[in-house]
This record gives sequence, C-alpha cells and structure tokens, in this order.
Amino acid sequence: MVMHMTFTVAVAGASGYAGGEMLRLLLDHPEAEIRTVTAHSNAGTRLGEHQPHLRRLADRVLAPTEVEHLAGHDVVVLALPHGASGAVAAELGDAALVVDLGADHRLVDPAAWEAFYGNPHAGTWPYGLPELLHAGERTPAAQRAALAGTRRIAVPGCNVTAVTLGLQPGVAAGLVEPTDLVAVLANGYSGAGKSLKTHLLASEALGAAQPYAVGGTHRHIPEIEQNLGVAGAGAVSISFTPTLVPMARGILATATARLVPGTDPASVRAAWEDAYRDEPFVHLLPEGQWPTTAATLGANTALVQVAVDERAGRVVTVTAIDNLVKGTAGAAVQSLNLALGLPETLGLPLDGVAP
Amino acid sequence: MVMHMTFTVAVAGASGYAGGEMLRLLLDHPEAEIRTVTAHSNAGTRLGEHQPHLRRLADRVLAPTEVEHLAGHDVVVLALPHGASGAVAAELGDAALVVDLGADHRLVDPAAWEAFYGNPHAGTWPYGLPELLHAGERTPAAQRAALAGTRRIAVPGCNVTAVTLGLQPGVAAGLVEPTDLVAVLANGYSGAGKSLKTHLLASEALGAAQPYAVGGTHRHIPEIEQNLGVAGAGAVSISFTPTLVPMARGILATATARLVPGTDPASVRAAWEDAYRDEPFVHLLPEGQWPTTAATLGANTALVQVAVDERAGRVVTVTAIDNLVKGTAGAAVQSLNLALGLPETLGLPLDGVAP
Amino acid sequence: MVMHMTFTVAVAGASGYAGGEMLRLLLDHPEAEIRTVTAHSNAGTRLGEHQPHLRRLADRVLAPTEVEHLAGHDVVVLALPHGASGAVAAELGDAALVVDLGADHRLVDPAAWEAFYGNPHAGTWPYGLPELLHAGERTPAAQRAALAGTRRIAVPGCNVTAVTLGLQPGVAAGLVEPTDLVAVLANGYSGAGKSLKTHLLASEALGAAQPYAVGGTHRHIPEIEQNLGVAGAGAVSISFTPTLVPMARGILATATARLVPGTDPASVRAAWEDAYRDEPFVHLLPEGQWPTTAATLGANTALVQVAVDERAGRVVTVTAIDNLVKGTAGAAVQSLNLALGLPETLGLPLDGVAP
Amino acid sequence: MVMHMTFTVAVAGASGYAGGEMLRLLLDHPEAEIRTVTAHSNAGTRLGEHQPHLRRLADRVLAPTEVEHLAGHDVVVLALPHGASGAVAAELGDAALVVDLGADHRLVDPAAWEAFYGNPHAGTWPYGLPELLHAGERTPAAQRAALAGTRRIAVPGCNVTAVTLGLQPGVAAGLVEPTDLVAVLANGYSGAGKSLKTHLLASEALGAAQPYAVGGTHRHIPEIEQNLGVAGAGAVSISFTPTLVPMARGILATATARLVPGTDPASVRAAWEDAYRDEPFVHLLPEGQWPTTAATLGANTALVQVAVDERAGRVVTVTAIDNLVKGTAGAAVQSLNLALGLPETLGLPLDGVAP
Repeated sequence: MVMHMTFTVAVAGASGYAGGEMLRLLLDHPEAEIRTVTAHSNAGTRLGEHQPHLRRLADRVLAPTEVEHLAGHDVVVLALPHGASGAVAAELGDAALVVDLGADHRLVDPAAWEAFYGNPHAGTWPYGLPELLHAGERTPAAQRAALAGTRRIAVPGCNVTAVTLGLQPGVAAGLVEPTDLVAVLANGYSGAGKSLKTHLLASEALGAAQPYAVGGTHRHIPEIEQNLGVAGAGAVSISFTPTLVPMARGILATATARLVPGTDPASVRAAWEDAYRDEPFVHLLPEGQWPTTAATLGANTALVQVAVDERAGRVVTVTAIDNLVKGTAGAAVQSLNLALGLPETLGLPLDGVAP
Repeated sequence: MVMHMTFTVAVAGASGYAGGEMLRLLLDHPEAEIRTVTAHSNAGTRLGEHQPHLRRLADRVLAPTEVEHLAGHDVVVLALPHGASGAVAAELGDAALVVDLGADHRLVDPAAWEAFYGNPHAGTWPYGLPELLHAGERTPAAQRAALAGTRRIAVPGCNVTAVTLGLQPGVAAGLVEPTDLVAVLANGYSGAGKSLKTHLLASEALGAAQPYAVGGTHRHIPEIEQNLGVAGAGAVSISFTPTLVPMARGILATATARLVPGTDPASVRAAWEDAYRDEPFVHLLPEGQWPTTAATLGANTALVQVAVDERAGRVVTVTAIDNLVKGTAGAAVQSLNLALGLPETLGLPLDGVAP
Repeated sequence: MVMHMTFTVAVAGASGYAGGEMLRLLLDHPEAEIRTVTAHSNAGTRLGEHQPHLRRLADRVLAPTEVEHLAGHDVVVLALPHGASGAVAAELGDAALVVDLGADHRLVDPAAWEAFYGNPHAGTWPYGLPELLHAGERTPAAQRAALAGTRRIAVPGCNVTAVTLGLQPGVAAGLVEPTDLVAVLANGYSGAGKSLKTHLLASEALGAAQPYAVGGTHRHIPEIEQNLGVAGAGAVSISFTPTLVPMARGILATATARLVPGTDPASVRAAWEDAYRDEPFVHLLPEGQWPTTAATLGANTALVQVAVDERAGRVVTVTAIDNLVKGTAGAAVQSLNLALGLPETLGLPLDGVAP
Repeated sequence: MVMHMTFTVAVAGASGYAGGEMLRLLLDHPEAEIRTVTAHSNAGTRLGEHQPHLRRLADRVLAPTEVEHLAGHDVVVLALPHGASGAVAAELGDAALVVDLGADHRLVDPAAWEAFYGNPHAGTWPYGLPELLHAGERTPAAQRAALAGTRRIAVPGCNVTAVTLGLQPGVAAGLVEPTDLVAVLANGYSGAGKSLKTHLLASEALGAAQPYAVGGTHRHIPEIEQNLGVAGAGAVSISFTPTLVPMARGILATATARLVPGTDPASVRAAWEDAYRDEPFVHLLPEGQWPTTAATLGANTALVQVAVDERAGRVVTVTAIDNLVKGTAGAAVQSLNLALGLPETLGLPLDGVAP
C-alpha cells in the first residue's frame, strides 16, 4: 500500500526564472498539484509566453500576485522582490506552508540584515538547507529537525549554498581557520534573474567574464558567515567574489581556508567524507575528479571536491551546483518535503542533463 | 625623417594558437617582415587551413620546424612543446633574437623547475614582463633595463601575468602579506592550446565551468612566486586555482591578499595608481568600474581594479587580459621591441574588440 | 491495480553522448532496469569518469562491448560506429529487442545507402519515428502500427527528425512542392559525438558559426527524402545544410517549401494543426510564437511553427528539438515503449530545462 | 613623400555597438581625427563607461546628439534610430560627408520603404557596398564610381551584405534563378543592438538558437532584392530567415538558388572567382574549405564559398562576416575612403582575431 499526501500549491512570481524552475520541479513531484500561478506585470498572459519549456503548463493564465489568489493552497511559494514576502505570509497565516525563495527571512541578526539590505528586518524563518552542519555534528541532522513540520521556509541564497557545502565540513571539524576564508565563484547568468540590465545582455556576456559586487559588498556574505557560525566557527570572515561567466546556469565555487597548524592532511578528506557519506544530494567526488557545473544541470545535486595544498597551507574546495535547482527551487522542494513529512528526496532529480 | 629598423622573423609552431597570434600581431608591426612559418605535423600544408583568419598569410606553406629553416632571421619566435627551445636556441646562437613562448627559461630556481616540470632545467632568460616591479620600485623600470638589448626572451605564462599585475603593487609597497595569497581565475579555452583532449571539446565546455590543476599543482605557481619575490616579497605562498569557462579567450584573475595590520586603506589605491600611472598597457580602472575580459579581446591591455574589503581584512584585485595577447604574443612583441631598441608600444593594439 | 512490465536493458557505447543520454532517460523510466553498460576503449573504467552527471550510475563499471555481455537482456541499445550493429543483432537474435541509435538500418534503398555510406547495406528495420505521416494520413497512425511488437528499431538521425517534422504536414496534404525543399540547421556540438577532432574543440566553437557537409553530401539527406516520400511525395529533392553553432545541444531547423500554386494560405495552418493536434511530443506553437531550442533541452519535445511567406511563395517552418532526446535517445524510448506494448509516453520528459 | 588628407570626424550614437565599432576602426585609421562623440540618454557620461574596450577614448565625454555638436566636422557618422538621420543631414548640408549606419536612405523604392518601415521615405543615398555587382559586370566597378566623391553614404544592412555577396555572382552571370532564393542566417546578438529586451538577455541566449522575423517580414528583404536587381536580376524573390545563435558577433549566411537548367556546374565556380578575384575584402575560399565566422571577427573581411548540389539542382553559398565590421562600420570606412579619394583599404583590418 502506498500512502499519498497530495498538496495543492501556488507559485507567485511564476514568469521569472526562479518561479519557472519551481514549476518545473513541482510538475514532476508526485504529490504536488499546481493550482495557481501568479505574476506582477505579466498577469493576464499565458504562462507559455514566458516559460515555453513548461509544455504542460503552457495554457495556464497568470493571475495577479495578490493574497486572494494565493490563499487556500496547502503550499505557497513566493518568488518576489525583497521586502514583499513578510506581509503576504502574515495574511496567509498558518493555514499555508509558505516557502520564500527570496532573502527576507534568512538572516538571524537584524543588524547584518540592515547593513546589507537596508530595509527593516522581517524576522527569521527556518532555513532551507537540510545539509547544514551544526556545531558538534559530523553528519547533518539538526537542520532537518528544524525543518520538520515547519510552516515557513527561507530558502538559502544560491551562492551561499555552494560555499557553505564546500567549507562546512572543515569548519565543523575544527580543521580550518574560519577567520580568513576566500571564495571566488563562476556564476551563470540566470542567478541574476530576468531583469533588463545592460550588463546582462547576451552581447555583453558572450565571450566575457566579469565580476560583480566585489570588495565585501555582496548580500550573500552575512548569510555564509551565519551558516559557518552554526557549523561551529566562532568568528567567521570571508572574502567573497562572484564572477559572471557565459553560461545560463551553474555555480562553480572555489573556496579556500587555511589549515589549522599541525593538522594531519589525511584527516581533511575524512571530515568531508563523514559529512556527506549519507547525503542524497551532496556528493564528494572520488579523489582526483573535479566538479563541473555541467554535471549538475537540472539536478538537485551538489558535487564537491577537496584537496590540501600543503605548499600554500590551505584547503581548497570546489563545489558545483545548478543555481536554480540545489541553489533555489530544488532546495525549496527538499525542504517542503521535510516540512510536510514526505520523503526528503521525493520528486527531486538527482542526475544532471549533460553534455 | 623616419628611422626604420626592419627585422625578419620566423615563427615556429605557426599552426597553433600561440603561433597564430604571434603572426597576427607581427602582420601589423610596421618593422616586422614575416619570412618563415614552420610546424611539426602540419609541415607542408597551407597556413590558411589552420589559421583561416590570417588572410594575408593564407597561401604561405609551413616548413618543418628545423634549425635550417629558422636560421638566418633577425628574430625567431618559438611556440614549441616544453624542453625543445633550448637546443634550437643553442644552434641559432647570438645571431638571432630568440623569443620563447614556452616555459623552459622562465624560472631562475632549478629546483622549482624540476619540481613542477620534471625535466632538467635549461637555464634562465630575461623575463618578458616589462611591467614587473622590482623591490624598491614604485613604478616599473628595472625589468625594462633587463630586456634592452637582450638576445633571449622568456615570455611569461598567461596566468602568471594576470596574477602578477594584480598583486605586485601591494607587495612592492609592503601593504599586503605575501605569504597567504589566493588567486582563482576564469580562463578561456585557447590557453589550453589546440590539443585534442576530451575535456577541451565544445560539448564539454559549453554551459560548463570546470577547474583544473587544483591544490597547488599548476606549473604557473613557482613563476608567480618568483615574480612577487622580485617585487620585494620575502617568502611568497599562493593558493592558485584556474577554472575553464566557456569563452575562447581571456583571463579574469581574482587575487586577494591580507592587508598588513594597521595599513591605511587609502594607501592601497595610491600604490596601484603609482605602479601603473605611466604604463601604456596596464590600466587601473576608475573606482567602481570592474574589468571584463571582453574589453581586452585582441589587445595588449591589462585592466586592473583593486578594492579593500575591510570586513575581511583583505585586498581584492581583479585583472583582465587576453591570454593570447598580453598573456603571450603581445608580451613577446612588447619585449622584442625593447630588445631591438624599438619603441615599446610599436605595432601593439591597445583597444579591444568588443562586444 | 497497476500492471508492471519491467524490462532489463543493456546499453552498448555507454561512455559516449548518445549512450549517456539513453541511460539518463532509462534511469527515469519506471519499467527499465539498467543491467549492463559497455564501452570499447573505456571498458574497465567507472561510468562516473565519463558521465559525471549520471549520479545513480557513477560506480558502474563498463564491460567490453561484446555479445556475451549484451545477451540475456530484454532490450539492447546499440550506440556503435556505423557498420557494427548488424552482426551484434544477428547474434542476439529475436530474444532481445534491439534498438540501434546508428544509421545502419534506417534506409530502405540499398543504392541510397551505398551512395552515402559506402559500405554494404545491412537491411532495414522499423523506423523509430512514431509521428511519421504516411501517405493519405492527416494524423500519424501507420508508423505506430509498424513499431508495435517489433524486435528491431532503427532510431532516426537527429537532423532528419527535425526536418521531417517541420515539413511533412504540408507534403502529406499536397500543399507544398517536394521537389525543391531547402533546409538549413543550427546544430549543437553534441550531435557530432565525443570524437577528438580539431573543429570540435571549444576554442574553435566558441564565438563561431561554421557549416559542414555542404552541397548535398550529408548522410541524412536520403533519409529525409525517404521520410517525405512515405508522407506522400513522389520525387523529393532537398538542399540541406547543417551549421554548427556554440551550444552543446539542440537543433533549430529552418525548412522551406514552395507553396503549390493556388493554395489557400489558410489551409496551411490547418494541415499542421491536424497533423500534430493529438501528438504528445510534437507541439505546434500558437501563431506568432517561434521555437527556441532552449525550451526543448532535456525533453522529448519538438516545437514547430509554420508561416506562409506570400511574397516569396514559400512555406517556412522552424522546428526545435534536443538532438540527444527527441533526436536520439527519446525517440528510442518512445519507440521501445511501442514495441513492448507500454504507454508510448512512459518515462519520457515533456518539459525542458530552461533557461 | 607621403600625401596626407586628415579628416575630422564626429560619431553620433557613440555609446551603442555600431557607434563603438565605428570608433574602434577610426582609431586605427591613419587620416581620421576623432573630434566629437555624442549620445542621447548617455550624454554627459564618460565613453569609458560604455565602451571599456576603447582605451584611447576612455576619458572622452559624450556630448548630446544635436546638430550644434555635429557641425564643423569633415565627416559625420550617424548611428541613430530610424527616421532621425535625414533631418540631421539636411542641417549639416554639403559641408560634411554624412555616413548613415541606419536604414533610412538605403532603399530606392518608396513603396518598398513604406511597406517595411512604415514611415515616409527620406530619399536615397549612394549605397555603401563597393563590391556590389551591376548588371553586365563580372567584377565590381560601377558601385565604386557611385561612391567616389559623394557627400552622403547609406551603409548597407549587415544581413544584406552577407546575402548579397553570397549570391550576386551567380545572379549577375545568369547562372541561377533569382525568383526563388532562400537564405537562412546564423546571427550574433550584437546585430540587435544594445537594447533592453528579454529575448536578448544572456540567460535566454546561452545554449539556445531562436529565429526572428520569420515569414517574409524582415526589413532587410527589400534591400536584398534591390541589390540583386542591380546585379542583373529582373524579378527577385527571397525567403529570408535570420536566427540568433549564442555568439556576440558574426553572421553566417547560407543562401541557395536554383541552377538555371542546362548550366555547366564548372561555370559556377568561375563566376564567383571572377567576381572576387581582385577584391581586397571578399575572399572566395579554396574548394572544400568552408567559412567560419570566427575567422572574420574584427576584420572587414567576407569569406565566401560556393558549391553546386547537383542532386538538389541548387547552388549553395555560405558567407561569413563580422556584422559590426564588414556588416556595418567597416563598410562605412571603406565607403568613406572612396568618397574622400583615399585608398579604399586605408585603415581597415583584413585579418580576424581568432580563436
């Protein structure tokens, strides 16, 4: 006998990239019933105009993003601009599991929120990274407990997930110094959303690599520091630089940390192996094989590798994810599965689309 | 009255990417007369088959890469596999200015050479990075003196040039700690040459970012350390990770260094401004504007930016170059101009081809 | 009650692109049990080295491509070089459903085979394009009948599928003249396979569009002509030019045909609507919306649009498919579903992965 | 003794792609002195913000695009929206050579203009395609005469140049039928300009091929027909479909025409050889070698190939150009050289930047 727990779902912001990816995953989720799709300026148009790849939803018409259209669903997914989700969630109340793909409820520290985002802090929701290590853990468990049964989920930032997964085993095991981390990322353009800005034009992107938010200004920095703090670091300090490269999807995060003096290099691999041995979606590659973003395209998979550079006295980790899946919509589905008491992996793709 | 000093030139390895770029630049050099092009397995074929973009040389036939074909030229440029250039140069003697695009004669320390390359050290030639700062300099001068009149030039590695230009002003001015540098690069595929390897196929590259030579194994590491040592660092240690991204050309090097405690952040920009104020090919961008590789395509130009991340206690620099021009063939022309007593900028493109 | 008809399957040539895509689809097929993966030169290595995106199969070891390893499966999929599949199938006999991803058994006419392929004709197998219109049909049916229960399937060429789907409604309805067709295709690189050739290198592909097999020489030409002949054309003649463009996957086929004089333009759209109204995998887009290959990535979907250019007296059709899915492995699964009596759409993705 | 004829120049629309490319070429033109750069919404900003690749002009400030800033130059180049150049030119009078990169003055037939552009015809200027064959010519001459000494130049559309160069030798020689031409183009994104539209975003472009202006609606159609009419065709009819592919620059135009019955295939190659034998910028490749856009990047070069497909009874031509150079700014420089009595090739790059 098979138990079923079908849930109805509304996706707000369904004409954008994050909303579209949410729909793509929900279409293949055996318990999800997509009832409502909404948009702001695109309300009233066919979804097929904006998401021509979602054949099964091509004829759905976008409703306006208003609470009256979102209410009455078991799950409401919000892909909205910063600052908008708090009020919507308040109106929906606890009747709905509200999943926020935006940043509003990720940070615990109001001061960090205000320093990086500028508007008032809207409160903190359970954080949708089930694989987040907590201090004292060698394998992730506590974060899953925090998500079980919740009515609110704050989905992590895509860059944050990549850097956290790369570094946290060493931090949690006390093998690396968390006060001088460096991360540089190669980012696909869909992470910037469907916004009309000159530097996001194809002509600017093709054949080019360009950094952005350099010098400690990126809004994902306090979120990374928060995660590694949870993993056991006291103070955390990270130099973080994302760079746009000519691909639509994918993040390749190269993150390094100084080895604690006297650390046995052999213990490094053991820490990463312990952390991810049982994870369905985070895979430490065999020694010598390095991640490529292509292998994660479309999948809720993170590929991780770690090496000790004894010459430089640093651990180097490289993590590949699809920013729209494990970095956004896949993390959302994984977390809502936990929140609803469903198997964590239900409906989630594990294999990428390559080449 | 205009003085002319025409020189004849042979390019060995002319069917590859570095050789092709050398020819492209020499075609526009007012004093260069391309007499001979050679190749190994492609000897006997038309250059137009291999370099269809070099219209003016399309009908040249590739001679075999043998000394008899290279002798008798004023300048001989070698784009050969590692280990081959020493013997050729010995046979050519001092009659020719020999410019080696390969690695054989870059490193001063035989132990470093053997550790990273594995074959016997072939001696050191004057190093073709005119902008290399020497200890005590605030603006580059000594390296130009080292190149004036030389009969041998070792052209730097492309990644090395990008990282050296990004970091050396801070090292020379004593503002950053050279013992814990981190550099992560986004690299175009032409840096890997025209070799037939699976990971270099278009199907593998398109839509993908992938690292290589991770964990302190890349051969450019000792060369970077050597350069920054010249710039005034005592011990140098760098974590260096190149990543292939889907573009044919270009290097975007993000390099960071810890600020020396107590350093006035304002002095950082001054050091970079001093270093590059008078450089024709290295441009510190206005504050707030970040380099893109697209702006350097085809040009012998390095675009540099620097910022202080006070939160992380690090200087972050980003440098963009065209790996085949400022990273290889442009550096060669610039250096041979100095060696021959010609104006350093003669025949070199300054403006990129964009978008 | 749910009926199950699980089948075991072996994939030969599993380290290449077509074999890898076959595995990706079979992993999500509810009745397929992947038992064996084989390769030629990669035999003995882990599949994860060659197909890092197929996480669930990463630890499978490739057996050599020999009949002893392929025998004993319900289904055997062959992704082999031309000329190899006939002998393998003969040894396997009728015990296995043999699905050939190669060209060996597609053509009915031995003379056409020999003219374009050069080696002896190996016989004709039922052709794996269920949507192929037969003369007199307005909606596809006969080809499905031809595939029901078969023990042999010849999967179409990817370019052939795109051009056939674009043009056949007009040919079958007698609205266009089949003797002066023109098709020009934009092709992703994976269609060329994982072979090590200079023109397939990333450095050659990035930023470039290049044609190949121009002037009536491409091997897919007689196959297109055969299909349109089945659709009702007497003589067929097509000018066919594929061009490689910088994407890993996808075919965008622009195909045009002269309108039969006196044809009512309104009847054109009706013919295309009739042909594909009930097709699960071939979608005529709403008027004014044109296909993009991105919308088909990873999906067994063909997007088709048609317009009448009255000025030029031609019908213009544009068809987008993923060359590895609807163009190869998806067509194989769709056809083997029919051969095994399973629902035709079972296990096949309909929605693409975009952006 | 060397004669000099320096000219001053103003470029209006200098922050866009066509204007930027015009500046790039003029920087290397030995007789051009760039005095003024103007823009509309970007007036008052530094050129370096918009054209970071033009290092020598980085500190120029953009003036507003008004006649008072454009008057007083020997040459004025207009890269303006449709409909704007006529009034500007009228105010400038014959004191300036006015070069229009836009479409306003290309078409001779007011009816064709109004049918495709919708606003009143602004008159016809000498057409800036020096290689245009006129009826009865086997090698281009008459069009050069039309440009000599002119005070007005209408620069051709980029797609038009590619298709005209590909087909005109056969039309002029009477070897092909001009009433049923078909052209399909692979286009880089810079041809669409720097406009903020969703389908021009990098996320939409990367990994995708998409057509536009299908079905006889593209504004370049009457211009192609006009050109082939000049070349000797009576009535001309062309099915024309451009497709956007993921590259910043380049056009690969595949154009086919039916052979006139009874034509000796050997005469085809002769016609193309005759037409382009002496052309500095249009190169018929050796038989068997096909054009790639990469070989033309940055160069004022068209690469052409032609083949007879006897099976299909068609001539197939493929032409590669850089849409911003031979397709726009290079054609402008070439034509203004002729207008000013300078050597036609002065200051124009012949060799591309590849890979």
